[in-house]
Amino acid sequence: MVFSDLVEFGDWFAERRRAQKFDVTRIPLDDLDGWHADPETGDLGHHTGRFFTVEGLDVTSSGREVDAWQQPIINQAEQGVLGILVREFDGVPHCLLQAKMEPGNVNGLQLSPTVQATRSNFTGAHGGRPVDYLEHFLAPRTGRLIYDALQSEQASWFLSKRNRNMIVQVGAEPPLLDDFCWLSFDQISALMREPNLINMDTRSVLAGAVGPSLRGADPDPATFRGAVARSQSAETGARHTTEEVLSWFTEAKNRCTLRRRRIPLSQVSGWSRRDGILTHEHGQHFDVIGVAVQASSREVTSWHQPMFEPRSRGVIAFLVRRIGGLLHVLVQARVETGALDGVEIAPTVQCQPDSYRLMPGRAPMFLDAVLGAPPERVRFDGLLSEEGGRFHQAQNRYLVVEAGDDVPLDPPPTFAWITLRQLTEFVRYGNLLNVEARCLLTIFGFYQEDAP
Amino acid sequence: MVFSDLVEFGDWFAERRRAQKFDVTRIPLDDLDGWHADPETGDLGHHTGRFFTVEGLDVTSSGREVDAWQQPIINQAEQGVLGILVREFDGVPHCLLQAKMEPGNVNGLQLSPTVQATRSNFTGAHGGRPVDYLEHFLAPRTGRLIYDALQSEQASWFLSKRNRNMIVQVGAEPPLLDDFCWLSFDQISALMREPNLINMDTRSVLAGAVGPSLRGADPDPATFRGAVARSQSAETGARHTTEEVLSWFTEAKNRCTLRRRRIPLSQVSGWSRRDGILTHEHGQHFDVIGVAVQASSREVTSWHQPMFEPRSRGVIAFLVRRIGGLLHVLVQARVETGALDGVEIAPTVQCQPDSYRLMPGRAPMFLDAVLGAPPERVRFDGLLSEEGGRFHQAQNRYLVVEAGDDVPLDPPPTFAWITLRQLTEFVRYGNLLNVEARCLLTIFGFYQEDAP
Repeated sequence: MVFSDLVEFGDWFAERRRAQKFDVTRIPLDDLDGWHADPETGDLGHHTGRFFTVEGLDVTSSGREVDAWQQPIINQAEQGVLGILVREFDGVPHCLLQAKMEPGNVNGLQLSPTVQATRSNFTGAHGGRPVDYLEHFLAPRTGRLIYDALQSEQASWFLSKRNRNMIVQVGAEPPLLDDFCWLSFDQISALMREPNLINMDTRSVLAGAVGPSLRGADPDPATFRGAVARSQSAETGARHTTEEVLSWFTEAKNRCTLRRRRIPLSQVSGWSRRDGILTHEHGQHFDVIGVAVQASSREVTSWHQPMFEPRSRGVIAFLVRRIGGLLHVLVQARVETGALDGVEIAPTVQCQPDSYRLMPGRAPMFLDAVLGAPPERVRFDGLLSEEGGRFHQAQNRYLVVEAGDDVPLDPPPTFAWITLRQLTEFVRYGNLLNVEARCLLTIFGFYQEDAP
Repeated sequence: MVFSDLVEFGDWFAERRRAQKFDVTRIPLDDLDGWHADPETGDLGHHTGRFFTVEGLDVTSSGREVDAWQQPIINQAEQGVLGILVREFDGVPHCLLQAKMEPGNVNGLQLSPTVQATRSNFTGAHGGRPVDYLEHFLAPRTGRLIYDALQSEQASWFLSKRNRNMIVQVGAEPPLLDDFCWLSFDQISALMREPNLINMDTRSVLAGAVGPSLRGADPDPATFRGAVARSQSAETGARHTTEEVLSWFTEAKNRCTLRRRRIPLSQVSGWSRRDGILTHEHGQHFDVIGVAVQASSREVTSWHQPMFEPRSRGVIAFLVRRIGGLLHVLVQARVETGALDGVEIAPTVQCQPDSYRLMPGRAPMFLDAVLGAPPERVRFDGLLSEEGGRFHQAQNRYLVVEAGDDVPLDPPPTFAWITLRQLTEFVRYGNLLNVEARCLLTIFGFYQEDAP
């Protein structure tokens, strides 16, 4: 299925939506079939010991706006595969995406990668059927490998979770199954502007296609899109050499004093069980809720599970700026509590503004510069969902904003201006860019409007 | 101090050796001043809680030749700085190295980096004097940053130890202190052939100079040295794209099932206290010993400490081969028990052959190919020391050997043939190449003989 235009895609997607029956109902945590709270720790786990657990985490010396806290966290050690198959149709690369239902999705169905499988999926722990197209991603493969890196996911909610992000290009056209379709990068870029359509895993994986897809691109240099392409292609003119940027990142790791300690979920201070959910005393951050799921299209058609549901909407934004004629992105080396190495490269702004409502004057740096920018400097502003398998109705506002002169060329030491070329180089190595930065990189790299 | 030839260096070094008085005496572990065994766990620690501890580690599902074992391990969480200052003299880059005594050094004095300092050193935990030249490596710096990465050290003996490896180039000549000298890369390369002279930290750091130093190099293509330079400069012709090599590495991490658990030192099975040391039941691997140190030249002039002393000599080797006219290096994705992420890129062979004497037929792959190579294929064969601050008289045999036709172009899946360009790209990112691979990269990258 290749679409001649997005109206055609819209019809197809509406049809898929009608074809897939599903129902997600909130139920009290105590009523989750197959899940139980450990009598000693209160940790939530599945009776098989698989999938994931919800545990407690004690954080100290984070060096963040709030230095120390305790919270529930998802511990999901097993690594899955997020894979996108690419194939050229009439010389134009297209990605094979899947209209997939996840229990936490806003709108139910979103566009997932070709393969989105935990190890439990493909080793049969769910007792489900085999994962479609998985053979293209497991060795021995026949396609051309474009990208394959072990990448972190939301480190505020996951402890050390990583998935293998893969892109494989094939020559022959594989059989097209129901719920799958081929979309070009330009089409995906346009669909990114639809709220809650392109899912987080798709955005995360496609970050690995930005560099290769911009190779040889030569759009009009007077446009913003042209500036993006030049930021990837220019070999000189970056404000900092790659060695200097890596040193900035090493310095941040060296400075990091973060201490993390797992604690029993029942002892997490500031959180309590109430009305069948686990919730924060000030109604901030997120709730841990239970859901019962019925879904005709999934390997297993009904199950219960706990999920994290944010209490407020987050802001995830890149400030960008042309420096010496070359577009630069303002990134931060951010202490990420759940990340393997404690520090990752993150967007300029990544927060839930509501978390700071009780702490006047301590809002994250550059939040005002992002939210207060005049419309003509806002290059992207969209509501996108986080992963619907673990997060319930989790929407964040993603922005790409051209910075004004009030944003300094020499930012505080945890920030740095870097080029798109440097970002696409870093994304090839795991554990450098966090998931929020990777998602923005995708939005940014496939930017397609011809406005100046 | 710049030397016109190595004879002049030899005189200077002999003079430094005479000037520095030191004495290292073995003493029983129970007699170490300032150190004690925890009454509950038996773990060895310093009374201040600083420096390092010796603990127990339980390893299972390693997937190595031996799948599970227990061992003592050094836990040294604090990150230090290993820094080399570079400056051009008459257009030729020279490194500022230090003739430094370490208690474990074979021959006492070896050539250390400009700065080799733990955080305890520079925050004054030793009660010692300030670290010379340290200001060139801490922000804000004035020199040009060449290399700065957080790198692992011997993961068989250290749990998660990492040091910041740095190279900084300065314009103005800094004051030259006693025990310091300037050596060119060619001089260092020649001195690498002296047993136990260029210390491990120097070799480790200089891996970051291989790429930059070979930029624009154009030696005779008929020589081995020329093949090395071309393996760095050629942009095409690698057997695998960098994406494919990174995918091979991701695959190895994905496959890794390693489980590590800290256990009390007193409960490590197969090891026991005897005659004032902690030793393995078959006399294999290493002993944990105690030493009393007197050293006129060190910040603190006398102290006691535990050290690891290997029971046998290790072999650390690269097999190399010209494939399609381009020199390739055979590396392995090795499960490294003490490394942060469990898997790092390692030399073709890295082992203590003696560990396999009781297990006929289970010796590591390619060990015979390395040790049995005819002399004309052996490009480097030298005895070099591991770090003398923690390891006592630890010598390994480092080899670079051109492979025969019996070594397959399609090796088993944990191995891959990669180019020098790929190695020098990877070394810029921390946690990819292990310390043994970095040391061999330095030997290899500064190779200077003009033999064919």
